[in-house]
Amino acid sequence: MRTISADISDILAHYQTQVNERLEAFFDKKIKEASRISNYTQEVAVNAKEYTLRGGKRLRPIFCIYGYKCLSDNNLEAIIEASISLELMQSYLLIHDDIMDEDELRRGKPTFHIVCKAMCERHFGTNKALEFGENIAIVVGDLLEAYGEELLVNSQFKSEYVKKAVAKYAEIIKNVGYGQILDIIAERKGRITEDEILTIHKLKTASYTIEGPLHIGALLAGAREGDLQVLSNYGVPLGLAFQIQDDILGLFGSEEKTGKPVGSDIREGKKTLLILHALERCKGEEKEILLKALGSQHVTTEEIDTIRDIVRKTGSFDYSKKLVREMTDKAVQAIKDSDFRSEAKDFLINIADFIGKREY
Amino acid sequence: MRTISADISDILAHYQTQVNERLEAFFDKKIKEASRISNYTQEVAVNAKEYTLRGGKRLRPIFCIYGYKCLSDNNLEAIIEASISLELMQSYLLIHDDIMDEDELRRGKPTFHIVCKAMCERHFGTNKALEFGENIAIVVGDLLEAYGEELLVNSQFKSEYVKKAVAKYAEIIKNVGYGQILDIIAERKGRITEDEILTIHKLKTASYTIEGPLHIGALLAGAREGDLQVLSNYGVPLGLAFQIQDDILGLFGSEEKTGKPVGSDIREGKKTLLILHALERCKGEEKEILLKALGSQHVTTEEIDTIRDIVRKTGSFDYSKKLVREMTDKAVQAIKDSDFRSEAKDFLINIADFIGKREY
Repeated sequence: MRTISADISDILAHYQTQVNERLEAFFDKKIKEASRISNYTQEVAVNAKEYTLRGGKRLRPIFCIYGYKCLSDNNLEAIIEASISLELMQSYLLIHDDIMDEDELRRGKPTFHIVCKAMCERHFGTNKALEFGENIAIVVGDLLEAYGEELLVNSQFKSEYVKKAVAKYAEIIKNVGYGQILDIIAERKGRITEDEILTIHKLKTASYTIEGPLHIGALLAGAREGDLQVLSNYGVPLGLAFQIQDDILGLFGSEEKTGKPVGSDIREGKKTLLILHALERCKGEEKEILLKALGSQHVTTEEIDTIRDIVRKTGSFDYSKKLVREMTDKAVQAIKDSDFRSEAKDFLINIADFIGKREY
Repeated sequence: MRTISADISDILAHYQTQVNERLEAFFDKKIKEASRISNYTQEVAVNAKEYTLRGGKRLRPIFCIYGYKCLSDNNLEAIIEASISLELMQSYLLIHDDIMDEDELRRGKPTFHIVCKAMCERHFGTNKALEFGENIAIVVGDLLEAYGEELLVNSQFKSEYVKKAVAKYAEIIKNVGYGQILDIIAERKGRITEDEILTIHKLKTASYTIEGPLHIGALLAGAREGDLQVLSNYGVPLGLAFQIQDDILGLFGSEEKTGKPVGSDIREGKKTLLILHALERCKGEEKEILLKALGSQHVTTEEIDTIRDIVRKTGSFDYSKKLVREMTDKAVQAIKDSDFRSEAKDFLINIADFIGKREY
């Protein structure tokens, strides 16, 4: 076990470096492009580079690279280059998300609209600076989407393959959009069912973090319908496992490892599967504590401890852990049964294991 | 002259119908797609259809169709279908624009975020309804971009051609994005030069209304670099002429024909080329009147009349008219010198004439 996990960390670290180097080079070209228009567009592009490069596990590009490796090993340079389109998409979606959620921190630093708010204050004063920041951030999200599309469509594969990959790219954005609408509405309704949560996870996390990137990589290697189906059988359950594990880490993980304050989902009033399951199974005082804490900015460490107890006592912790295990097993089985290249199979099996057990 | 203008109106009406029919069919498919996810996503898709179909001259798809016709007449059905991607882009950009400008009316009806605000009020009450409306509208803008991309990449032309058309599609969005950043910043700075205005027009109007759509159509017919250059020599000056004529109509046109309240640019404080030129050439009381009116919601009809007089007296009206004429002539000359198909040449020459003289 130790070796496998060491291996996977090495592989991840290797491709993280590769992806980051290419992202850096890509943004440097864009900064040049933007500088030809004006100092301000240049400044915005510099900010977009900092934002994209300030962190992240680069899981999406890596899944894209291994989607390609399932079928081919011929043009690694080109697939790594193409894979960064997924990180551009990620920045684009995070920027728009943070505006909608009015979040001020992302990866430990100001969210993009807050960065642009500061830009406004520096150049033009504080009047309506937040509005300025949000408006620039909407446009920069749109710009990054176009950057990603441009990069992908110009990738060095057969035109026929590229066409299919771009269609998939648009499909992912569509899925995330539909999922986001459901998310916004669920928040307003104040109630949500387990089925609805799973639908949102499927549309947002599974499609966009694992299945979609795998498909794009595979399509660039000339994948057929059957290949895509196998990758869906792997990517959808693993995507769900990834999200549920995220929810578990949000409450039980260590702030040091996750980089997120423990209990931030609770403070945001997010009804994760973990919390919903507990809510449906507790009553009296415990239910009151849980409901009171959800969405409250003033939740104490003691209250978080109590909530952890409730989540354990109601069996929600075990239930979620079991779901993660079952989904991960399902994903692994789909890959084992496939006839993909063995290097890719090994990686996909190991990363599934890694995701199921990850602590960050 | 009478015949030409009758001809062009017939051609425009013909393709408007064709484009609208296809848009309708496209949205019906998307409504079905969205209905499989939830009633809410369906409702949002229905609203997006109404918004896109409520009006518009469909100039962008028509330029795309004629970009294709410059080189080929082989697959009209497919080019009309592909051309509606530009109308989807247009809806996407208008929705995001209206959020940024906090506008409440578009084509005589509520802007998209106001439509979604009403959706919130109907289902969930008035609390934070505007915020809900803006958030859904950001996502729907993103969705429409993905719809357009999906439609274009699935169009029935050679993969190699489609690839280039999609790259152009991304380039247009990029240009509009850069232009929009300049626009937001110019508004904050409160001052702008004639050069800066022209740069914004080039990035926003010219690229996105005329040159870009022509390029996409031509690329789908297999255009080469030289063909694109000719279309740029036509599209860029004509795009500028289109915008300046827009500014003129905004102050001197009839509300009945343009559908926009006369002087709305003045009320919004928009420094058009027409106004900037006048501002630089008047002084004393006249300058005061002009500066006071810019951005004021309470401008009277009398004040608009006075501003018209100032714009005439300073020669700005004639200067702008002359620019429109010169730019239109330049565009026409570029097409006359080309070896494109004669049907397309005729249309492009006539539409340039039409744009230069249009009253709406």
